Amino acid sequence: MKKPVPGARRVPFDRLIECLTGIFERHGCSASVAAILAENCASAERDAAESHGLFRMPGYVSTLRSGWVDGRALPVVEDVAPGFVRVDAQNGFTQPALAAGRALLIEKVRTNGIAIIAIRNSHHFAALSLDVEPFASEGFVALAFINSMAVVVPHGAKAAVFGTNPIAFASPRADGPPVVFDMATSAMAHGDVSLAARENRPVPPGIGVDSAGQPTTDAAAILGGGALLPFGGHKGSAIAMMIEILCAAIVGSRFSYEVDWSSHPGAKTPNTGETIIVIDPNRGNSGLAPFAARVEELIGEMQEAGQERLPGDRRQAARRERLREGIPLSPAAIAMIEELGGHL
Amino acid sequence: MKKPVPGARRVPFDRLIECLTGIFERHGCSASVAAILAENCASAERDAAESHGLFRMPGYVSTLRSGWVDGRALPVVEDVAPGFVRVDAQNGFTQPALAAGRALLIEKVRTNGIAIIAIRNSHHFAALSLDVEPFASEGFVALAFINSMAVVVPHGAKAAVFGTNPIAFASPRADGPPVVFDMATSAMAHGDVSLAARENRPVPPGIGVDSAGQPTTDAAAILGGGALLPFGGHKGSAIAMMIEILCAAIVGSRFSYEVDWSSHPGAKTPNTGETIIVIDPNRGNSGLAPFAARVEELIGEMQEAGQERLPGDRRQAARRERLREGIPLSPAAIAMIEELGGHL
Repeated sequence: MKKPVPGARRVPFDRLIECLTGIFERHGCSASVAAILAENCASAERDAAESHGLFRMPGYVSTLRSGWVDGRALPVVEDVAPGFVRVDAQNGFTQPALAAGRALLIEKVRTNGIAIIAIRNSHHFAALSLDVEPFASEGFVALAFINSMAVVVPHGAKAAVFGTNPIAFASPRADGPPVVFDMATSAMAHGDVSLAARENRPVPPGIGVDSAGQPTTDAAAILGGGALLPFGGHKGSAIAMMIEILCAAIVGSRFSYEVDWSSHPGAKTPNTGETIIVIDPNRGNSGLAPFAARVEELIGEMQEAGQERLPGDRRQAARRERLREGIPLSPAAIAMIEELGGHL
Repeated sequence: MKKPVPGARRVPFDRLIECLTGIFERHGCSASVAAILAENCASAERDAAESHGLFRMPGYVSTLRSGWVDGRALPVVEDVAPGFVRVDAQNGFTQPALAAGRALLIEKVRTNGIAIIAIRNSHHFAALSLDVEPFASEGFVALAFINSMAVVVPHGAKAAVFGTNPIAFASPRADGPPVVFDMATSAMAHGDVSLAARENRPVPPGIGVDSAGQPTTDAAAILGGGALLPFGGHKGSAIAMMIEILCAAIVGSRFSYEVDWSSHPGAKTPNTGETIIVIDPNRGNSGLAPFAARVEELIGEMQEAGQERLPGDRRQAARRERLREGIPLSPAAIAMIEELGGHL
């Protein structure tokens, strides 16, 4: 372990959840919404997904204060087909809407072998990996998509249309926690560009364009009227487009370029949609090799080929250490929590 | 139009299908398999997807001659759950297996809102776009994955594990043919590296590694014991891994690295799997904007932002021209067809 920073401390995971629940309640969330968001945010911090952990708390509070999102929304779950759940989050956060539809979704997957949940009028400000991993822990394969707000310029275009539109995937494996990945389809995460701008560092080439649509390594120019590029050129751009279609168009919410929070200063959370597809991989495979064992074989082969870090490995290692030792909080994080009215 | 090459000619689409059907039958395919493969191959040529059109015919014949694939296989369709179709292609080609399971799949999508087909023991040697586009023409959204043979090295590894593992997506739109993309998850298509090697041209950096796992621009080194890299670094690598899981592990077929045709000289087609997820995007969306109209709005915004060529545009333009004027055949293509016993 690294040398402790003066003033830093570790708190147990449950204690952090309790503290964050208090902050969410104090800033306008119902008890049930506060509990869900607090566990989600603490879990990202536990997994060392810091960009979606405590770092997000001021943004949550600011967006709640602005009136842009409803912290007391009661999601409406619609059973629209034997394999299809729709949820209207009623301008609330996505995680409570997913929690509301989850039992029905799982029942449909068990019955049908595959099912889809399409959540609309929802605000997602969290790590997408946390939405898919629990399905894999129950033996299912899950694939999730969210769109966000227009900060990514389509390949060959001059202006931003797509969000950073992450895709997340989770699969069971026989001898370990689920394989999970969660990736923005932009060349760099928005938060990392902000960090570079704040520190006056250039970003690598291929990350973004300026307000004239010209390639630049100036992080401030990317953020100030410019845009990010998709990862992987025209291929990543096509995937970002697919995510707009699989989210906004299917769920019946806004496209990323339609998000307009200008009337709510302080708003930070895009009001868009989330789509999750869940598959029972063992359905009807008697006589074939069990799914999780096969995934384990694939992982073994990837390791044999020299891939030392598998998707999700870093998250899992941090989780083990932090559940055991407590979640490390920097003095700045502690000050921020206190400023938001949290009690550690 | 370009100036015609001496000896080149154009043939009507139907005439080309008929000619290719004859070649497939002559080389060991049943009448029904021959008809499906011939239409598929001619369609790729019609769409100017030349790398999966006539260019593939010698490979089809060579693999049929080798005994590696069964051109007379009768696929077995299993109705394993209300939303799940499994097909055992019985070591035949994938397209006849998909055709055999298609009606049941569509029925399930109409009933459930979503359904999945998992095809195993199947050989895919064709353009994946052709597998998904017909679903979009019927108003559905389709997402397809196939794995192939180990030619792509996972991010950070030294040896090939993944196939070029393409992903294809198709969606209806209100005012035009479906939006379709079809992309290898390798940094470059295998066929394009072969072409560069044949012409002694280097490939750009970032495409492949040599047999020691070191980056190289030497196409021959990539093919001779080296490997391709995934597109988009660790993100493309994670997607390639996901496709191995969504195909091989779910369908119950070989992973790309398990394909071994060494006992069948002349074999060219990986025996792996294909998975297709089909969604009815309008299910339960009364009161929301109609799906295809929303996709049209997204496309309009992408064009407004300056994206001149949308995914699939080139294919559609070629299709219109070639259906009207005939499929152009070079003297070399005509000679190849005649050599394989085809009659134009």
